[in-house]
Amino acid sequence: MRGFRAPDVTIGRLAEYLRALNSMDLAGHPPRFISSHELGPLVGVTSAQVRKDLALFGEFGKQGVGYDAANLRRELQQILNADRRINVGLAGVGELGDALLRYNIRRAAQDREYPFVMAAAFDTNPKKIGTTVDGVTPVYNVLDMPEVTRQKDLEIGIITVPASVAQSVADSLVKGGIRAILNFAPTKLTVREDVRVRYADVSLELLCLGYYLGPRRVRPDGGGPATG
Amino acid sequence: MRGFRAPDVTIGRLAEYLRALNSMDLAGHPPRFISSHELGPLVGVTSAQVRKDLALFGEFGKQGVGYDAANLRRELQQILNADRRINVGLAGVGELGDALLRYNIRRAAQDREYPFVMAAAFDTNPKKIGTTVDGVTPVYNVLDMPEVTRQKDLEIGIITVPASVAQSVADSLVKGGIRAILNFAPTKLTVREDVRVRYADVSLELLCLGYYLGPRRVRPDGGGPATG
Repeated sequence: MRGFRAPDVTIGRLAEYLRALNSMDLAGHPPRFISSHELGPLVGVTSAQVRKDLALFGEFGKQGVGYDAANLRRELQQILNADRRINVGLAGVGELGDALLRYNIRRAAQDREYPFVMAAAFDTNPKKIGTTVDGVTPVYNVLDMPEVTRQKDLEIGIITVPASVAQSVADSLVKGGIRAILNFAPTKLTVREDVRVRYADVSLELLCLGYYLGPRRVRPDGGGPATG
Repeated sequence: MRGFRAPDVTIGRLAEYLRALNSMDLAGHPPRFISSHELGPLVGVTSAQVRKDLALFGEFGKQGVGYDAANLRRELQQILNADRRINVGLAGVGELGDALLRYNIRRAAQDREYPFVMAAAFDTNPKKIGTTVDGVTPVYNVLDMPEVTRQKDLEIGIITVPASVAQSVADSLVKGGIRAILNFAPTKLTVREDVRVRYADVSLELLCLGYYLGPRRVRPDGGGPATG
């Protein structure tokens, strides 16, 4: 089932298929079978796209019946390694970092299938080091990052430090054995080829959205600039 | 310069080129000219990619000299509408929403070129309605969203509400005239064709990263599961 690398966009859709199946299950009405015609619209793609994506990983469906929902879910979990606990470490317990930790801790508490455990956080602030976030995630000194990363068996790193130090934090995470990074810092990271980085860069996302706005709108009431 | 729709991936790179130029300027050493060979590595793409992307929008460069940095920056700002103030509204002043507001307010305070103004926030909690975030962003009742969106001339909406209500919030934003949405809620949105949605979905990003981890690692020390 593995042994080849699926394109990133395919992986993104697999994650969405899995989440759609999880939602049905959480809502208490898991179907026995689900067709590509049902699954596609839940994720905003065509049924042909669903079949093509899943065919990359094996033959899950039955002609005229669809996919065995529980089986498909299990397979997707295996492909995405979501069938086991994944320890996540977060660097930078500022406002955004703190909010992301609490968000993930809450998700994990609500959903037994949520595979991500916020196992460690890192900061430079002596007032934060030695405390816990939400009574769950211990905050360590950023200097101990490579060691703690190994000890806590961290597999994914979330970076929420300022852009100026994001690269050195990424280097420390990789030194500790991290192979996957979600970077919120507004900067590009340079990492080894076997390390995967995804970007969740808020200001860049906003900049991109700006393209679609077109010239400044005339306000419907024809008034001057908004005050307030 | 406009009149056609560039691919999303191109827009993403334009935003990164702009940010690279902005960084140089903020750091106090803006170059007079910058070549595609200099700009490419800053963004992690080839010089050929830089030239191809920019050629889509006109002829900015001079053979053997590169691009006039100030001029290129201005052009990129125009393409992305980053040469004017863009009012942003955020729905859902929970932990993540609050953190995002503060992050953007701080960015705007530090960088005069940051075009995004956090002009309004929305929530259902009576304790939050009528307050401000960081003394800057007023929090309104979510029921008044279409009206406030028009009054405040909001152009981009950020959604940080729970997944179960994200679609109805998106509908309200669109009703008020919003044409671009950054969605943090872990769910797919259905919007009109002329509305652009980008996703910043933390749990989905983590699920995608899981694919690249492979089977559970054996810990370097050969010990049991980490405790902690």
